[in-house]
Amino acid sequence: MADTPSPHVLILGAGFGGLNAARALREAPVRITLVDRKNYHLFQPLLYQVATSGLSPGDIAFPARAIFRNQKNLTFRMSEVQHIDLAQKRLDTSTGALTFDYLILAAGSETSYFGMQSVQENGLGLKDLDEAVSIRNRVLRMFELAAQEPDPEKRRALLTFVVVGGGPTGVESAGALSELIRLVLIKDYPQLSLKDVRILLLEAADRLLGGFPAPLQEYASETLWRKHVEVRFGASVTGFDGERVTLKSEEVIPSQTLIWAAGVRAARIMDRLGVRQSRQNRVVVTELLNLPDHPTVFVIGDAAYLEHEGQPLPMMAPVAIQQGQTTARNILHHLRGEPLETFVYKDPGSLATIGRNAAVARLWGLKLTGFLAWAMWLGVHLLWLVGFRNKLVVLINWAWDYFFYDRGIRLITAQQKWPWTPGKASEGETKGRELGL
Amino acid sequence: MADTPSPHVLILGAGFGGLNAARALREAPVRITLVDRKNYHLFQPLLYQVATSGLSPGDIAFPARAIFRNQKNLTFRMSEVQHIDLAQKRLDTSTGALTFDYLILAAGSETSYFGMQSVQENGLGLKDLDEAVSIRNRVLRMFELAAQEPDPEKRRALLTFVVVGGGPTGVESAGALSELIRLVLIKDYPQLSLKDVRILLLEAADRLLGGFPAPLQEYASETLWRKHVEVRFGASVTGFDGERVTLKSEEVIPSQTLIWAAGVRAARIMDRLGVRQSRQNRVVVTELLNLPDHPTVFVIGDAAYLEHEGQPLPMMAPVAIQQGQTTARNILHHLRGEPLETFVYKDPGSLATIGRNAAVARLWGLKLTGFLAWAMWLGVHLLWLVGFRNKLVVLINWAWDYFFYDRGIRLITAQQKWPWTPGKASEGETKGRELGL
Repeated sequence: MADTPSPHVLILGAGFGGLNAARALREAPVRITLVDRKNYHLFQPLLYQVATSGLSPGDIAFPARAIFRNQKNLTFRMSEVQHIDLAQKRLDTSTGALTFDYLILAAGSETSYFGMQSVQENGLGLKDLDEAVSIRNRVLRMFELAAQEPDPEKRRALLTFVVVGGGPTGVESAGALSELIRLVLIKDYPQLSLKDVRILLLEAADRLLGGFPAPLQEYASETLWRKHVEVRFGASVTGFDGERVTLKSEEVIPSQTLIWAAGVRAARIMDRLGVRQSRQNRVVVTELLNLPDHPTVFVIGDAAYLEHEGQPLPMMAPVAIQQGQTTARNILHHLRGEPLETFVYKDPGSLATIGRNAAVARLWGLKLTGFLAWAMWLGVHLLWLVGFRNKLVVLINWAWDYFFYDRGIRLITAQQKWPWTPGKASEGETKGRELGL
Repeated sequence: MADTPSPHVLILGAGFGGLNAARALREAPVRITLVDRKNYHLFQPLLYQVATSGLSPGDIAFPARAIFRNQKNLTFRMSEVQHIDLAQKRLDTSTGALTFDYLILAAGSETSYFGMQSVQENGLGLKDLDEAVSIRNRVLRMFELAAQEPDPEKRRALLTFVVVGGGPTGVESAGALSELIRLVLIKDYPQLSLKDVRILLLEAADRLLGGFPAPLQEYASETLWRKHVEVRFGASVTGFDGERVTLKSEEVIPSQTLIWAAGVRAARIMDRLGVRQSRQNRVVVTELLNLPDHPTVFVIGDAAYLEHEGQPLPMMAPVAIQQGQTTARNILHHLRGEPLETFVYKDPGSLATIGRNAAVARLWGLKLTGFLAWAMWLGVHLLWLVGFRNKLVVLINWAWDYFFYDRGIRLITAQQKWPWTPGKASEGETKGRELGL
C-alpha cells in the first residue's frame, strides 16, 4: 500500500476518537495508519469495574486489529510516539518514522497529580488496565493483611480506603468499592467487622458530579452515604506517604490505599507540539477541530480544548466519538476542496452509576435517578461496548453479580514478598507493573 | 476458633489436592487452616488456553475464600511458607508461625530447567497465570514486531516459536499456538505470510504423550504435523540466549520465543523438609500417603512420590484429588484410633487435546481420538472447572472461538519500551512480572 499515491491519514490513538475517525474513513480514498502503544481499544467507562473485581481486563479491551480486520485502507501499528514534527508532517515512533498528509491527534488524557510527588508515587490512578488491576490487587491485599493483623489500629488503617475526586470516576469507584466490600468481601472474611472498614470520597468542591443538575448531585451523595461512603466536601489532599493521607485542613487519615480520580490532563505528548494549550493542557483547536496554523492537523477528544456554550467540552466518550466523525468528514471535504464543517456538539446527556439500582441520568431534558437511570446506564454501556463476545461476557458477569451479590474476579495477581510493607508498594506491586489480564 | 481444643489440620496449597482434602474434612471435628501464597485456586489444565489468548486469567482462577465461604471449620490464610519444622509440628510463614496436629503438604510442582541457566532466564515456563500471560504477551509482541520488520531473516526469526517438551502441556500448547496463529492472527496481519511462521515442538524422546497408548501418540504427532507444527524427536535443547535456541545436535534455531514444557519438579519447599525424595524431587510417601517418620504428616499430589503398577503416579489432577480425599479419610481414621487406609489409585484414564475436533482419550480401556475424544475433553474440563460463572464464561469463549475462529483475549499487557529488544525480555516484560488478569 505504501506506494499508492492516495493521501496518508495518520491517526494517533485507538480510543473512542481515533476509532470513530478511522471507521468513518472506511470508504475514503485514503491510506490510514492508526498508531497506538497498546494493541487494543479500551472501554474506559467500565475500568472501575475491573478495579473492583467485577470484570476481567479482557472483557473491556478489544484487539485493535480485530476491529479493523476488514478495513482494507487501514494499517495498525503498535508503537510509542516519540516526536511529532508538524512543520515537516512527520511522526517519529519507537519503530521508525512516518510522514502524513493529514494527522488526527486522539491521544486522550492521563492522570494529573497536580505536582504532588508523594501522591503520584503512593497513590493509585485509574486510567488504564494496569492501574485498574493495581487497585484490585491493593484492595484485596489489604483485606488479606487485615485478616491477619492483631493490632486493631493497624487493622482499621488497612481497611480504610480513600477515593479522591467527586467526578464520575470517583463516584462510580467509591460506590462499587462499597458494594464490593459490604456485599462480597465481608462474607469472605468472617473474622473482620464492617465497623473497621472506612471508605472515604474526598471532594475539594462542595458537590459531586459537577456538570450534573443539582438534584442529581444531591442524589449521588445521598446514595453514597447510604452505602456508608464518607462523602467529604471541601477536602483537599496535600500528600500521601503510603501510610497517611494528609489534607489541607491538616487532618490525617491513616490508610494505605489512595485512589486518585481528582485530576486528568491531556496526554503529555501534546505538550511537545509547541502549540497553544488551555486548561488541563488540552490543545486549543478551531471550531473545525484543527490547529490554527496547521489546517490538516486535527486534535480530538480529551486532548482537544474547545468550548461549548461557554464551557470547555467534557472529557467524555460522546465528545470524542462525534469529533472523530466530524474530523473524518472534514478530511473528505478538504480532499474535495470543499469548506470544512464546524463541529457542533450534540449533547446526548450524561449518566453515572452509584451502584445496584442506583444511577443518575440527564437525558432529553429529563433528570432521572434510581432504577430507571441504572437500567439505562446498563443498556447504554452494553450497547457501546465493542464486540459481541465482550457484550455477552460482561452481561453474564453483571447478571451474576446482581443476582448472587458476587464479584468473580477478586484475584490478587501481584507476586511479592509477604508481609506487604506499606510505602513499599513499589516492590513487586510497582504501579502500572501489574500487567493486567 | 483458635482456642477450641479440636485438632488442627494444616493444609499447604489450594490446588486440586489441598482443595479436595479440605472439602472432604468439611464435617470433621477439626480446625483447618489452608495456606497458599495465592488467594485463588488455579485450574491448571486450561492454563495453556490463557497463554494462547483463548481465555482470561479470571476464567480459570477461583477465589479460595469463595470456595470455602460456607465451611465453618476452615480458615484461609494467604502467606508464603518459609520453613517447615516437622519435629516441632510448626510452620513459619511470612505472616507468622502456625503449629499443627496434622499437616497435609499439597504444594504441587514447579518448572524445572535441569539447571540450564540460559533457558531459565530467557525461556517461558507455563506453570502459573503470570507465566501464561507472559507467553501470550510474547507471542503477540512477536507478531507486532514482525509486522514492522523489513529484514526477512529477522522477521522469520520473530515468527519462530519453539515449544519444548512432548507431554500434554507441550502438545496442547503447540496445537493451540498453531491454531491461534494460523486461524486467527494471520487474519490480523495481512502483511505477514504463514510461510514465514515456524512452530516447533521439540521432544527429546522418540514419542509424544509418554504414558498414552502408542496409537494415540501417533495420532497426536500426526495431527500436530497437519497443523504445520514441526514435531521433532530426539531433540534436546542445550541453551537459549533469547535469540537462538541451541540443540545437543548443535543445530541452531533463530527464535525469540521458547516455551519450556519439558520439565517439572516438586515445589522447592519440599527440598527443605530433610526427608527422602525421589525422581523430580518428589517426596517419597508410604502407601498411607504419610511420611515414614511422621505419620501425621501427609504429602499428596505432584509433590508426592508413590508408585502404581511399578510406575510413579503421574503429576495429574485425578491423582491429587483422590489422594486429598484418602488423606482426609485417614485423618478421621487416626482421630478415631482406626487403622489408616492405603491409597489405591483409580485411574480414570487420560485425555489430551491437540486442537479443534482433535484430542486423544484413554478411558474404560478404550482408545479414542478425534471429535469424540475432543467432545469428552470439553465436557470433562467444564465439569471439573470450579464455579458456575467460570463454567459459563469458559463455555461462551469456547463456543465463540469454535464458531468464529477467534480468540478474544489477544491483548498485550506488558508495558515496555519499544522496540522490544531480544534478550532484554527482562525489561518490563520480566518473566512472572506480567501480573495477569
